[in-house]
Amino acid sequence: MPKPASLRPAYAGKRVLITGGLGFIGSNLARALVKLGAQVTVVDCLIPEYGGNPRNLAGVSRRLHVNISDVRDRHSLPQYVRGQHYLFNLAGQTSHMDSMTDPETDLEINGRAQLSILEACRLHNPGIRIVFASTRQIYGKPDALPVNEQHPLRPVDVNGINKIAGESFHLLYNRVHGIRSTALRLTNTIGPRMRIRDARQTFVGVWVRRLLEGRPFEVWGGEQLRDFTYVDDAVEAFLLAAARSEAEGEAFNLGGPPPVTLHALAELLVRVNGGGRFTVKIFPGDRKKIDIGDYYADYGLITQKLGWRPKVDLRTALARTLAFFRKELAHYV
Amino acid sequence: MPKPASLRPAYAGKRVLITGGLGFIGSNLARALVKLGAQVTVVDCLIPEYGGNPRNLAGVSRRLHVNISDVRDRHSLPQYVRGQHYLFNLAGQTSHMDSMTDPETDLEINGRAQLSILEACRLHNPGIRIVFASTRQIYGKPDALPVNEQHPLRPVDVNGINKIAGESFHLLYNRVHGIRSTALRLTNTIGPRMRIRDARQTFVGVWVRRLLEGRPFEVWGGEQLRDFTYVDDAVEAFLLAAARSEAEGEAFNLGGPPPVTLHALAELLVRVNGGGRFTVKIFPGDRKKIDIGDYYADYGLITQKLGWRPKVDLRTALARTLAFFRKELAHYV
Repeated sequence: MPKPASLRPAYAGKRVLITGGLGFIGSNLARALVKLGAQVTVVDCLIPEYGGNPRNLAGVSRRLHVNISDVRDRHSLPQYVRGQHYLFNLAGQTSHMDSMTDPETDLEINGRAQLSILEACRLHNPGIRIVFASTRQIYGKPDALPVNEQHPLRPVDVNGINKIAGESFHLLYNRVHGIRSTALRLTNTIGPRMRIRDARQTFVGVWVRRLLEGRPFEVWGGEQLRDFTYVDDAVEAFLLAAARSEAEGEAFNLGGPPPVTLHALAELLVRVNGGGRFTVKIFPGDRKKIDIGDYYADYGLITQKLGWRPKVDLRTALARTLAFFRKELAHYV
Repeated sequence: MPKPASLRPAYAGKRVLITGGLGFIGSNLARALVKLGAQVTVVDCLIPEYGGNPRNLAGVSRRLHVNISDVRDRHSLPQYVRGQHYLFNLAGQTSHMDSMTDPETDLEINGRAQLSILEACRLHNPGIRIVFASTRQIYGKPDALPVNEQHPLRPVDVNGINKIAGESFHLLYNRVHGIRSTALRLTNTIGPRMRIRDARQTFVGVWVRRLLEGRPFEVWGGEQLRDFTYVDDAVEAFLLAAARSEAEGEAFNLGGPPPVTLHALAELLVRVNGGGRFTVKIFPGDRKKIDIGDYYADYGLITQKLGWRPKVDLRTALARTLAFFRKELAHYV
């Protein structure tokens, strides 16, 4: 977990709004903020296909305020935004495949609703401090590895195009309207409370589910390189970014320990679990068109500016994730 | 005007749809297509602040079909799209300032409606050939001049962000869904039928209006370099792009004869008009934040791939524009 000592002054007693706060990263962030003494309001609309799950706030739900609402509902936004010191803006549609079959919904959530949120801030709370959850998906197929923030943005799917718009709005509102914003470009994030029902949030989710259910999981392709951030490291990045003025107007990559192939990840997962099986499948045709090949991030910029670096190695990340879901499986499938 | 001879085989007898076809470039394109023997349908919703004007089709309105409708109306789209050979997709919100005061409307037109148009093509006419009107605004403040298509996209206003999304959707649908599309990144385009009521489409419009009304016009700043494409050259680029398979999946800059400062342009305009006055004003603060400084395009890529280059020099462009509006002023103010 983030070092509470150094971050406590920034958050103790402060009002914090988290959109997508019943989701994977949002709920882990909410739990950390409650521990830091913040007054947390969580907004989530619990769309069944997305990451929100009331179980994610088990044990802390009486120490924060949960507001079930959709960020697309522009008329409610001024109500939550007023009076908040911080906004962690994590509500989003994350499925690449869904963005291709229903592109307008992806744009509505990842583009239009983001504009509405920023307009609500500009009009009703221009002093707010925002951190936006962006994604490595905006880079598309890397020209070279590792990928730093200067890499051209050439997304391979509608989700990537819309996330560029969402991130750009945040940085533009910083530059033109003085709304202090930071974007974090997340890579694959894993850990307790991720969606495991299917692969909509991360394929690792459905691997974990099948493993714990004693069924073989499927690895598509297998040679692709990926990096993984453990959720506590991601949470610390959000907390640091909002607390530090050096981060204003910036977009930072997050990353993970050394990248691995999906095949090596699958083997490690089985080993950490103490057993299990997987099958390797040819990459499906409709997915291949929007696949990005190998990816791992250069996270040197956020290390340099904010001192952030991932602390949890992949084996530990997988062990903690498996331990959590072994106990909690019934609430997540 | 475009060489009718070489383009006639591509368009004679073909069904062509033009969104924004009552606007400045759209109507000039519609007139050229009628001359080439195409069966033209024009869609426009005549929003008073935008470029559409029924007068733009004076003399040809009985040789084409005009459909008053808004491209945001997703339910009508399949009706026009079906059976068309070509779609020239020019409907858009063009005002940079309006995109900052009403960002959601800009996104709705330049982003969401573009997705709806492309979805209508994918579902109802996947064999259609599309050319999309993009803009130099997506580059933002140039790193170096002239600007080629590899320049990073760092727009300075909401309009630029949304036009990136609109262009990206077109190129993605080409790559993933096989919908043959080309984007033309327009710079300042001038000529008969441009909006002169105000500066919403181009500042040159309001200069021309004031000059012809015998009033001084205002030059903001004056030292900024800009390039200008005469509308007939722009029309030829659209016609070439749709007719040539080499253009599929590409984004091309358009450009103009050697760039000039706004001050030099103002002096040339007064000279060509045979008189007139202008005042130079300090750049207004709210505009300065979204100004891009100097800009002119490197249009070498479209010259190389399609043989396009601007033919009309700036003096001729201004003379023809003034001559047109001198006669037509009452219909445009």
